[in-house]
Amino acid sequence: MSARNSTSDPSASNVAKFKSLDTKIQQVLREAVEARTFAYCPYSKFQVGAALLCENGTIYRGCNIENSAFTVGICAERTAFAKAISEGNMKYKAIAVIGYQEKSFTTPCGACRQFMSEFGNIDVYVAKPELDQVLVTDINQLLPHQFMHPSSDYTF
Amino acid sequence: MSARNSTSDPSASNVAKFKSLDTKIQQVLREAVEARTFAYCPYSKFQVGAALLCENGTIYRGCNIENSAFTVGICAERTAFAKAISEGNMKYKAIAVIGYQEKSFTTPCGACRQFMSEFGNIDVYVAKPELDQVLVTDINQLLPHQFMHPSSDYTF
Amino acid sequence: MSARNSTSDPSASNVAKFKSLDTKIQQVLREAVEARTFAYCPYSKFQVGAALLCENGTIYRGCNIENSAFTVGICAERTAFAKAISEGNMKYKAIAVIGYQEKSFTTPCGACRQFMSEFGNIDVYVAKPELDQVLVTDINQLLPHQFMHPSSDYTF
Amino acid sequence: MSARNSTSDPSASNVAKFKSLDTKIQQVLREAVEARTFAYCPYSKFQVGAALLCENGTIYRGCNIENSAFTVGICAERTAFAKAISEGNMKYKAIAVIGYQEKSFTTPCGACRQFMSEFGNIDVYVAKPELDQVLVTDINQLLPHQFMHPSSDYTF
Ligand SMILES: [Zn+2]
Ligand SMILES: [Zn+2]
Ligand SMILES: [Zn+2]
Ligand SMILES: [Zn+2]
Repeated sequence: MSARNSTSDPSASNVAKFKSLDTKIQQVLREAVEARTFAYCPYSKFQVGAALLCENGTIYRGCNIENSAFTVGICAERTAFAKAISEGNMKYKAIAVIGYQEKSFTTPCGACRQFMSEFGNIDVYVAKPELDQVLVTDINQLLPHQFMHPSSDYTF
Repeated sequence: MSARNSTSDPSASNVAKFKSLDTKIQQVLREAVEARTFAYCPYSKFQVGAALLCENGTIYRGCNIENSAFTVGICAERTAFAKAISEGNMKYKAIAVIGYQEKSFTTPCGACRQFMSEFGNIDVYVAKPELDQVLVTDINQLLPHQFMHPSSDYTF
Repeated sequence: MSARNSTSDPSASNVAKFKSLDTKIQQVLREAVEARTFAYCPYSKFQVGAALLCENGTIYRGCNIENSAFTVGICAERTAFAKAISEGNMKYKAIAVIGYQEKSFTTPCGACRQFMSEFGNIDVYVAKPELDQVLVTDINQLLPHQFMHPSSDYTF
Repeated sequence: MSARNSTSDPSASNVAKFKSLDTKIQQVLREAVEARTFAYCPYSKFQVGAALLCENGTIYRGCNIENSAFTVGICAERTAFAKAISEGNMKYKAIAVIGYQEKSFTTPCGACRQFMSEFGNIDVYVAKPELDQVLVTDINQLLPHQFMHPSSDYTF
C-alpha cells in the first residue's frame, strides 16, 4: 500500500454493498452513474459523475468539466452543488460520486472537500459505475481539522 | 483612469441600451438578474448572476458561490456553464452577467474567460441589475491570444 | 463546538508546546511567522505564512496572495511548495503554517492539502504567530482517502 | 483559422525577433527557458517556464506544477509572481513565458492573466524554447475590460 493511499483512521469509514443501502441512496448513486456520461474530459479521459441529495428530496447531478488550462476546470461534486445552490437549495443530506479506477475509490479531491464543507457535514457515497462496493464516509471524515474563516469578521 | 481599468481597444465592444436589444437577449439578462439573488457570498457580499443561452433556446442560470477558503469558490458564469454541460447542452449563443458596481461593468474574471473559451466564441452581455446600459462584447474580445492546449495530443 | 470544527479522530493529532519541538522545527515555525508579514490579502485582511522544510535542509517561505477575483488567489502553503519545486527541490520533511484565529488553528485548506499530497506525506505544524501551542499533524491525517489519479495512465 | 485562435485586435501585439530585444529582456527570456526544465507536469507532459523581471532588476523564475486533481495545479506565471511577492518584491516590469507548441504561442491562461492583473500592467514576452520569434504584448491587451472588485469596500 502506498503512503498516499493510506487512511489514518480506517474505522472512520465503511465499505458497504450497494444493495444493502437505503433505496433513496441507491437512486442517488444511479443518478450519479448517469450524470457521469456527460463528463467533458478530453484531456484526462477520466469521467466522474456526482449526484447531490437535498433535504427536500431533490437530486442535482454533476459531472467533471475540464479545460485546456487544467486549473480552471470543475469537478463533478462542485458542479452538483453549484446547480443546487443556484436554484436556492441549500440543505443537503448526501452526495454520491462515481468514477472508474480499477484498484481504488474515486474519492472527492481536496478542493471539493473544502467547497462542500462550507455547507455542513453530509454523507458521501463513492462507487464504481457497476455499483457493487460503496465507500461510505462523510465530509468531516474526509476533511478533519477543517479550515474555518474567522467567523467574527462576517455575519451570515 | 487607472491602468487596471483601461481598455486597449475600446472599439472592440459597445455599450447598448437594454431596450434596443433583441427580446430573447432581454430575457436572458432578466434571468441573470433573478439568478443573482441566489448568490452565496458571505465573504465579499458581492452578488453576481449569470444566464447562459444555449443554441436550442434553453437558458441556464448561475450565481457566484464563495468559500471560506477563497480560491475554492465558483463564479456565476462557470456555474451557468456547469449546469448546461452536466445536462448535455454543449452549444451556446450568449451569456449575460449581472453585478452591481457603481462605476464599472462587472465583467467576467480571467478564470471564467478561460473556462468559457473552451466552448467557442459567444456573445457576452454585461449590465447592472437595473438593466439600463449593457456592455456588449464576446469571448474572443475578452480573451485575445487564447491559450490552446497542444491539440495534436488530444482527440476530441 | 460546531460541526464544521469537529475532528473525527482527535487522537490522530496532537497539540504540543513550541519549546518542546525539535530546534529545526522551531526554526521552520519562526520562518513561517516572518513569511506571513509578506501576505497580500487586501480582501480578507487574513494573513497566513508558511515555511517548507526540504530533506536537504533548505527552507522555502510562502504567504497567501489574494486576487480581486477570489478564486484566482494562492495560499501560503502552495506558494512555499511552488518556490521549492521551481528550484528543483522535490523532497520535503515538514511544513509550518501560521495564521491568527482567536479560537482555532489556521489549518491548510482542502485545495492545499490536495496540492501537497501530490508530493507525499510530510509533517504539518500549525500555530499562531506567538508560537505557543502547536498543532502537530501530517498530510495523510489531513486528507484521508486521498484521490489518486489512475496511475496506470501515466508514467512518472 | 479557428475561432478560438483569433485575435480581435492583431495590431495590439507584435512578433519580434529575439535578437532585436533589449538585452535585459533577452536575459529574462533565457531564464524562463531554464525555469521550464523544473516543470512538474506528469499528466500533460506540457512544460512551461516563466521569468518575472522586477523593477529593481531581480528576476524570479517559475514553472508549471500539476496535480492529480487537475484544478489544484499552478501555472508557471503564478509561480514566478508568488515567489516575488513572498519575498516582498511587489513592482514588476515584464514577464517572459516559454512553452513549446508547434503552431502557436503558449500565452498565459485566463486565470494567470487575472492573477497578474492585480499588480498592474506589465509587458509580456512569449516564445518557444529556441528563442527565435517572440510575441510581445502586455497584461492590459491580454485582459481587456478587467474585472475590478468594488474598490470602495477595501482600503489598500
Ligand atoms: Zn474535486
Ligand atoms: Zn469568474
Ligand atoms: Zn490553502
Ligand atoms: Zn495559467
